[in-house]
Amino acid sequence: MPGRYFEDYAVGQKFGSGTATMNAERMKAFAREFDPQPFHTDEEAARHTFFGGLVASGWHTAAMSMRLFVESDITPVGGSIGAGGSDLSWPRPTRPGDVLRIESEVLDLRPSKSRPTIGIMKVKLTTYNQANEVAQIAYPAMIVPRRPAK
Amino acid sequence: MPGRYFEDYAVGQKFGSGTATMNAERMKAFAREFDPQPFHTDEEAARHTFFGGLVASGWHTAAMSMRLFVESDITPVGGSIGAGGSDLSWPRPTRPGDVLRIESEVLDLRPSKSRPTIGIMKVKLTTYNQANEVAQIAYPAMIVPRRPAK
Repeated sequence: MPGRYFEDYAVGQKFGSGTATMNAERMKAFAREFDPQPFHTDEEAARHTFFGGLVASGWHTAAMSMRLFVESDITPVGGSIGAGGSDLSWPRPTRPGDVLRIESEVLDLRPSKSRPTIGIMKVKLTTYNQANEVAQIAYPAMIVPRRPAK
Repeated sequence: MPGRYFEDYAVGQKFGSGTATMNAERMKAFAREFDPQPFHTDEEAARHTFFGGLVASGWHTAAMSMRLFVESDITPVGGSIGAGGSDLSWPRPTRPGDVLRIESEVLDLRPSKSRPTIGIMKVKLTTYNQANEVAQIAYPAMIVPRRPAK
């Protein structure tokens, strides 16, 4: 897997991914460690909350989306490295048994002025569930190495 | 822990937190599950990357920040529920042994027009390491119940 240089991307390119299934036990364990709130840790308590049932921590959905992204075809050389701001939203919660996949689209490509060896690639990363409903939208700006001169 | 209603917050209020230490083994396990890249999973391989050593997945830093936030004094009644957009950035990576804490500041309070029982509270959530360097900045918009009429 050699990976792509900045010059190998074009605005409008899209990349799909495999899928990942959200498991209730893993959802609750993640939440006990990182987001200990009743709607994330306990089915019965969750019924009486805003969500009406167990939902994944948004950070679990985000982390799963990252794995799908890292394992997808977008593969920048040197890895998937965030450069900063990533507006992040969760239009709907993720529930046990949901099957997630992501789609990434290249929105913008800008060579760095201060660092001639890299470029900044802005991506729209959308996470879908099995009903093709949007579970998360993120806009990562990624650091991508430029192709070295021969 | 009764929790605070929308009316109990004021713009400019700040809330601190306890601390959490980033552990190398947990960092690598998180990354194997969610962000399998050499700079997150293997000290030796990480030395030869952009980061020059093992760093936590940004999503691990985000998840730890969430736990510090949930356990902090901000405690909205009904829980810490994100309403949507949260601009997220990682000015510097988190490394093994780093001790994180967060500070949250209320930036804006806006009653919902469409749902009279809730308000939206915009917060700046800053994650610091033990040297008081900023490891993460996020701007969550939170759903907070309004105090019921008597």
